[in-house]
Amino acid sequence: MSGALRAAYLGPEGTFTHQAVREWLALRAKGDDGGLVSAASGTAAAGGRSDAAQPRTTVADVHDAVSARTADVGVVAIESSVEGYVVPSLDALIGSPDVVAVDEVVLDVSFDAFVRPDHAELREVSAHPHGLAQCSRFVADSGLRPTPSSSNAAACRDAGPHTVALGPPLCGELYGLDTHARAVEDFRGGRTRFLVLAPRDAARGHLDSALARGTSAWRTMLAVTPHLVGPGVLARITETFARAGVNMSSLITRPLKARQGQYVFVITLDEAAWESGARTVLSDLLAAGDALKTLGVFPAPDLDVDGTLDPDHVPVGSVTVDAGTDEISRGLLW
Amino acid sequence: MSGALRAAYLGPEGTFTHQAVREWLALRAKGDDGGLVSAASGTAAAGGRSDAAQPRTTVADVHDAVSARTADVGVVAIESSVEGYVVPSLDALIGSPDVVAVDEVVLDVSFDAFVRPDHAELREVSAHPHGLAQCSRFVADSGLRPTPSSSNAAACRDAGPHTVALGPPLCGELYGLDTHARAVEDFRGGRTRFLVLAPRDAARGHLDSALARGTSAWRTMLAVTPHLVGPGVLARITETFARAGVNMSSLITRPLKARQGQYVFVITLDEAAWESGARTVLSDLLAAGDALKTLGVFPAPDLDVDGTLDPDHVPVGSVTVDAGTDEISRGLLW
Repeated sequence: MSGALRAAYLGPEGTFTHQAVREWLALRAKGDDGGLVSAASGTAAAGGRSDAAQPRTTVADVHDAVSARTADVGVVAIESSVEGYVVPSLDALIGSPDVVAVDEVVLDVSFDAFVRPDHAELREVSAHPHGLAQCSRFVADSGLRPTPSSSNAAACRDAGPHTVALGPPLCGELYGLDTHARAVEDFRGGRTRFLVLAPRDAARGHLDSALARGTSAWRTMLAVTPHLVGPGVLARITETFARAGVNMSSLITRPLKARQGQYVFVITLDEAAWESGARTVLSDLLAAGDALKTLGVFPAPDLDVDGTLDPDHVPVGSVTVDAGTDEISRGLLW
Repeated sequence: MSGALRAAYLGPEGTFTHQAVREWLALRAKGDDGGLVSAASGTAAAGGRSDAAQPRTTVADVHDAVSARTADVGVVAIESSVEGYVVPSLDALIGSPDVVAVDEVVLDVSFDAFVRPDHAELREVSAHPHGLAQCSRFVADSGLRPTPSSSNAAACRDAGPHTVALGPPLCGELYGLDTHARAVEDFRGGRTRFLVLAPRDAARGHLDSALARGTSAWRTMLAVTPHLVGPGVLARITETFARAGVNMSSLITRPLKARQGQYVFVITLDEAAWESGARTVLSDLLAAGDALKTLGVFPAPDLDVDGTLDPDHVPVGSVTVDAGTDEISRGLLW
């Protein structure tokens, strides 16, 4: 991809998604042009180009901008380590006739607390209800009145003289606020994964660019609608992956809206759709009668995966084969 | 279970969870005592008993009330047809040392719009940001200013003279409001599933009551932490279910917080843990070295499942084996 990029994202300005857009544009500018990046200004200037991040109001608006080519890419949150899949984003992608994911961005999610430089006595703490929940200890310790906002960015944008607003670090600079406290979330290490969306017919161009940048490890996100449901359907599908030696890094079931008890499986696999193992899997599933749709292909993150079970990280109350009979009965309720 | 029941739930009063609690208490009172039910009053009076619904502030508070036996059961939302799993509820259950699910309640989710009987000119429409999003057409058509609230119930409770508040039907009576419009959600047919939680050591009593009421079809919710991860792990687990002829109605992966790339599988299976197929599966998984934890056993809903693929309900853009080469390439991105 060369030339300036227009990136539509779920706004308003100052959301974590906006931050993800900036990082993605900066990386692309660096990768394509050798590094003249001005991430802080929200635009990436390289070789005279000027990328533009365009806030949109809804996930559907982001999709529409990509479909209508009024934006080159769209960026939406897809999964949070705290909240799981962002189902509206996932369902929009499953249901889209012509938008696919071509890249991803992973952000550490950390909240700063901001105040106006001219603030008066502080009386309230404002954020999206999820933001207030994720910073519950800071909110409780502050003794201030929790005040919900439609988004963390809106809380920062609209902060009054009596307000402490919680939001992404980006919001301080964006809305001219002072940082009152940093990293006020209850738990460190929360991460959110964002997808970069493009028209299906433009996907090849994005993926060729990633290949040219040296990407060698890929992931594919796939929707599998099985031709028959009932006992064994998931076993049949997963067996197809195992036989081809292709790892699934995630699998979830999503209901087919109109049909109770019927599901589409959303599977993330650790290969590109065109690599040999994935091609075997996709061909075998097609041959079995399933309906398939690739939801995205994107470079895989670098993961340091240790394959063995660490007993300290198993959910408390779990039992293993070494446990006594009573303990197993209690753990399994059988 | 006899005698009055104390049910802790995620408040405030007037949430959909509160409505789920009322329905559950009413059904239990009817089942145990023959039907003297006063669901509208929020208590079920039967044989002189008086059940009590107790609002709590957080999911953790609901768990604590159940663990500490200050409530007999707890009720939390676990899955929505619109938003997917309620991850904080799911993670609390996975991480709980001593709370399990013993029943479920499924509610149609429908919003009514309320105003104060003495309302003045209407200027704003208030709900939780998710409620505003789920009623986006009503909000847009109203021309009123969207005003986020910490919960739909809080929006109704705190409605001022200029406010239209969106919330469960229950809120009208509860907060003395007039119904301005009914069923203002964008999409009908949304449903939310709630779990009824009890101490693990009291689970048998609840399940024996359900057996005594004639329950014959069950579901079990299971956390499986595999002893090894990598290609084939999910295939091995699902093959174990297929061999025993046990259907999984849902499977999702949840990250083990501390270990990147490692997951616990949360599986809902269509048998009680003590039934023969489930016992075979659980024994085989234990023998393979996995760590297991039953998260709940509860009566299965009546589902009218049709096992065949309806082409009209497959996600748009999906391809099947009958499609042409170009169409398959476009659908699969291979």
